Amino acid sequence: MGEEKVRVLYDFEGVAENGELTIYTDEIITILRKDVGEGWWEGQNDRGEAGYFPSAYVDSETSGSGGAVTDTPPAADSSYFNGSQDASATTYAQESAPAADQWSDPSSQYQNTAATDPWDQGVANTAYSSSYGQDSWGDTTSAQAGGQDEGWDDDWDDDGASTGSSTATTPTSPTTKTMSYDANKSGGTMRKSLNRFSMFVKSGGEAFILGTTKSAGSSQNRVSVTETQDGWSWGPDPAPYKVSVADPTKASKMKGLKSFITYQLTPDNTNKTVSRRYKHFDWLYERLIEKFTTIAVPPLPEKQVTGRYEENFVEGRRQQLQLWVDRMSRHPVVAQSEVFQFFLQSPSDKTWKDGKRRAEKDPLVGGAFFHTVEAPQARLPAARIDTNMENFNRFQKSMDDGVKNLLAVAAESTKKHMGGFKREYQRVGEAFTKLGTTFDLDKKPSSKPLTNALWKTGAAYFEIGKMFEEQPQHDLNELMLKVDEYKGILSTFPDILQSMKGTMTKVRDCQRMVGEGKMSDEELEEVGVRADVITYTTLAEIQHFHEMRVVDFKDIAQHFLKEQIEFYGKIKTTLEESLKNYDNV
Amino acid sequence: MGEEKVRVLYDFEGVAENGELTIYTDEIITILRKDVGEGWWEGQNDRGEAGYFPSAYVDSETSGSGGAVTDTPPAADSSYFNGSQDASATTYAQESAPAADQWSDPSSQYQNTAATDPWDQGVANTAYSSSYGQDSWGDTTSAQAGGQDEGWDDDWDDDGASTGSSTATTPTSPTTKTMSYDANKSGGTMRKSLNRFSMFVKSGGEAFILGTTKSAGSSQNRVSVTETQDGWSWGPDPAPYKVSVADPTKASKMKGLKSFITYQLTPDNTNKTVSRRYKHFDWLYERLIEKFTTIAVPPLPEKQVTGRYEENFVEGRRQQLQLWVDRMSRHPVVAQSEVFQFFLQSPSDKTWKDGKRRAEKDPLVGGAFFHTVEAPQARLPAARIDTNMENFNRFQKSMDDGVKNLLAVAAESTKKHMGGFKREYQRVGEAFTKLGTTFDLDKKPSSKPLTNALWKTGAAYFEIGKMFEEQPQHDLNELMLKVDEYKGILSTFPDILQSMKGTMTKVRDCQRMVGEGKMSDEELEEVGVRADVITYTTLAEIQHFHEMRVVDFKDIAQHFLKEQIEFYGKIKTTLEESLKNYDNV
Repeated sequence: MGEEKVRVLYDFEGVAENGELTIYTDEIITILRKDVGEGWWEGQNDRGEAGYFPSAYVDSETSGSGGAVTDTPPAADSSYFNGSQDASATTYAQESAPAADQWSDPSSQYQNTAATDPWDQGVANTAYSSSYGQDSWGDTTSAQAGGQDEGWDDDWDDDGASTGSSTATTPTSPTTKTMSYDANKSGGTMRKSLNRFSMFVKSGGEAFILGTTKSAGSSQNRVSVTETQDGWSWGPDPAPYKVSVADPTKASKMKGLKSFITYQLTPDNTNKTVSRRYKHFDWLYERLIEKFTTIAVPPLPEKQVTGRYEENFVEGRRQQLQLWVDRMSRHPVVAQSEVFQFFLQSPSDKTWKDGKRRAEKDPLVGGAFFHTVEAPQARLPAARIDTNMENFNRFQKSMDDGVKNLLAVAAESTKKHMGGFKREYQRVGEAFTKLGTTFDLDKKPSSKPLTNALWKTGAAYFEIGKMFEEQPQHDLNELMLKVDEYKGILSTFPDILQSMKGTMTKVRDCQRMVGEGKMSDEELEEVGVRADVITYTTLAEIQHFHEMRVVDFKDIAQHFLKEQIEFYGKIKTTLEESLKNYDNV
Repeated sequence: MGEEKVRVLYDFEGVAENGELTIYTDEIITILRKDVGEGWWEGQNDRGEAGYFPSAYVDSETSGSGGAVTDTPPAADSSYFNGSQDASATTYAQESAPAADQWSDPSSQYQNTAATDPWDQGVANTAYSSSYGQDSWGDTTSAQAGGQDEGWDDDWDDDGASTGSSTATTPTSPTTKTMSYDANKSGGTMRKSLNRFSMFVKSGGEAFILGTTKSAGSSQNRVSVTETQDGWSWGPDPAPYKVSVADPTKASKMKGLKSFITYQLTPDNTNKTVSRRYKHFDWLYERLIEKFTTIAVPPLPEKQVTGRYEENFVEGRRQQLQLWVDRMSRHPVVAQSEVFQFFLQSPSDKTWKDGKRRAEKDPLVGGAFFHTVEAPQARLPAARIDTNMENFNRFQKSMDDGVKNLLAVAAESTKKHMGGFKREYQRVGEAFTKLGTTFDLDKKPSSKPLTNALWKTGAAYFEIGKMFEEQPQHDLNELMLKVDEYKGILSTFPDILQSMKGTMTKVRDCQRMVGEGKMSDEELEEVGVRADVITYTTLAEIQHFHEMRVVDFKDIAQHFLKEQIEFYGKIKTTLEESLKNYDNV
């Protein structure tokens, strides 16, 4: 026969409209073509269905049955937002319902800290979420943060060295165009996020509450929380500024053996450009989450092994880093912090190495950071804290659902625009064009103007099809980019709420100790005051989040609608132009 | 167990997005639900796929295998425009290519009248087409036309009595809305069309050519063909008029035992309304194709057994009858004919019975009609006739393809508007609404305006979804209605070209007879002159067709584009209104 048959190693759900074939584990596929390119083959199953599938999903060694099934699938499911994400949204929704009930039952609050506690569910959610981003480089960078990896000029190329399976994604379907923003590639550093609560504990959150950390001298960088009409806020940023992240440039060292991308950062208060690599961002990220345990520092964009020098990827990452830098420079505490300013301003020379070492030795991190906070003197009633945290816990989960749903819908809509919608309009165009071509068989002058008008109508609908294909680049893409950032921001709150919970538990422990005569009332009062400092920062951060959320989602929706209005206006104009051609018929 | 299983009698291709299940002959289906309604059941095949299917397609007697497969499928394929029609388009395309070659080879023209002759292919096509409309009521009405069924007031209810299988269509899917114009119900009277050529022969086309028919006296109703710059045309209609077909009304007789629909026809030259039933139209149709063998009298809308009193159906048929009456009243020959005027003007009393009998006894039908034609004296060169007929043969086939393709695309686009498009926009709306509902959890006044704006955006996209669903009623529906009429018109031309071919063959027979000394040159000349009369009427009819085609398709395209422009303008406005809500956020 000469037919090559292969056995399927992993299920792959093909997108039929892209000509992809759905294949099932242990199924035998007859190879039709191997020179499809980009990691795809064309084959036919025993039901006679043919299409493309990723060659990595089949056992190319075995011809026929047999052959060991090994490992996990080589790539994440390409329908990230559709299938798996929907499933997670459902899970979240199911979880949030009982949690809400529990929170609204005052008798059960803080009474049992067992597994049914909704705050623990927050952690459970995080653990669940972390299964999306199965990378292990959080550990690596932690080691690096510990100072064992001295200086930047090591040979280790962070742009692609250590990455988990979640980023070695499915090859691009030969029939699908890639967009500059790839939704599959972002928002997956959950493992790192999980470390943040333990960092709060390790770095002395408890110690601060118990009064065993020292204020550590110099406090020129004071942070304040003030009461406003909406609750408590971070003190305003005295000197706001913006930073542009531009001109991603491929650079190399070791005579071209190692290459990487540098991004040019220009803060508008200094107007001096500094050059930063992804690993510099990563270093900064580690510093920020170490220092600010109750501030929502969103994860950096995901790492990527392959295709990381492709124009689309580089531009997509630049946009994500720009958002990240915007987010941090809009935060009144982070923006004014020494380490962030150092990152934005230090030239890449000896100054950098010194500053880097100094930042890593900053004593005012974690629990000790709270010594630098000027919070209101008023004691916070526990019931009020409870209500606030309950509400935000519920809000955060609900918004996480809403955001993921919006992302899933936007991704699906993008696919429809580029696929089904485009095809449908172009098919209508083709039908008019074909009719025109038929009418062109009648060569009489009285027939010609109609023929031409029909051709123009055909061309108009073909053009509209193309407009549908390109439209996501103007609206849905940016919407997804920005909403995806919020997915990252939201992912930080379970840890922050967990820190808050740890704080409250510690206060209650102390209350118990007073009852048992192991602690004095004065000591308990001091513990309460210090715990309130942590609570005030958390409340200020929640308030800051809400303010930013309103500004950002107003912006997201407005931008989206404006682009949509322009889009439908363009369609209308295109059709009006086409209609004019019938005037002379 | 208690599970009911049935065996599939006929293949049925389900529309997956309507929840329908594709079933294959002899497959065993497990019944899930029988109370779906409207002739549908829900079931599951052995691959675990579940969905709706027409209960008439399975053998409800047999539980399990066995059971005789009988008869033909009880209903036509519901995907008339998609599946089967595409297949026919392909066949046509494949046939037309070699035919075109043959026509363009002058040496082979008229040399062999064997099976390879392209005109015979025209008949082959017709035979192929006739498989769509497998009804047998052409015979019934023929019998009626013969006068055996005297008068109208018989008990036989023509609106539904005799109908073939093609009209006892698939029950309406429970998940699909019906449109006022149902593309599946129209354009299927091919069997009747096939009879028209034999009618030409039977009614004396040959006899006329050979000069054996008589001019039959009175010729007050003369018809003329004149030369114009574009070729030959019917003489202009001296008194053009329009007729409205309105107010379909359910009427009954025999104390309600028989009911039917009457349509009120009002010609604007008399302004007197007459009431007509479908069977009156049918009677008229028979008279017209009997009398005018070289005129494209389009088939009437298809009959229907079930649902014929439903509002949508009645209105759809009214529209089709309006188009048909328009078509006939715009035809300069038909509009002025005695029988058509009688149909439009005679009150439904004794006058009607007399006129009906007189029309049925009209001697100037078929071949004898040509005695009433005043054609140019100039003899037509055979080569010119050949070219004209070749071109039109090619044109007609190509346009038939183009029209069927446009109908298929429009039907598919309608489905997309009502399904996928609507769903996609409403899903986007839902995502915004959900996000608003999430944001509503934050009860602070600073948050509320954004929440409201997001809800309005959600409502706007939900509304746009509904607009997509309804849009086909404004554009595609009318386009399909009018393009479908052309499918019917085009279906008449193979017979007309066949009559033309019969004429040419007869002339060549006579030429041979002259060569054999069996006919004189003078007689041949007379034969040629008479044959030219038939040819002139055919050329005039082709010319008339082209003129109407340009007018009609200009109108179709303009109307479609205007509605589309309004549609996208409305979307734009809806979004602009929605955008305004963000001004106060």
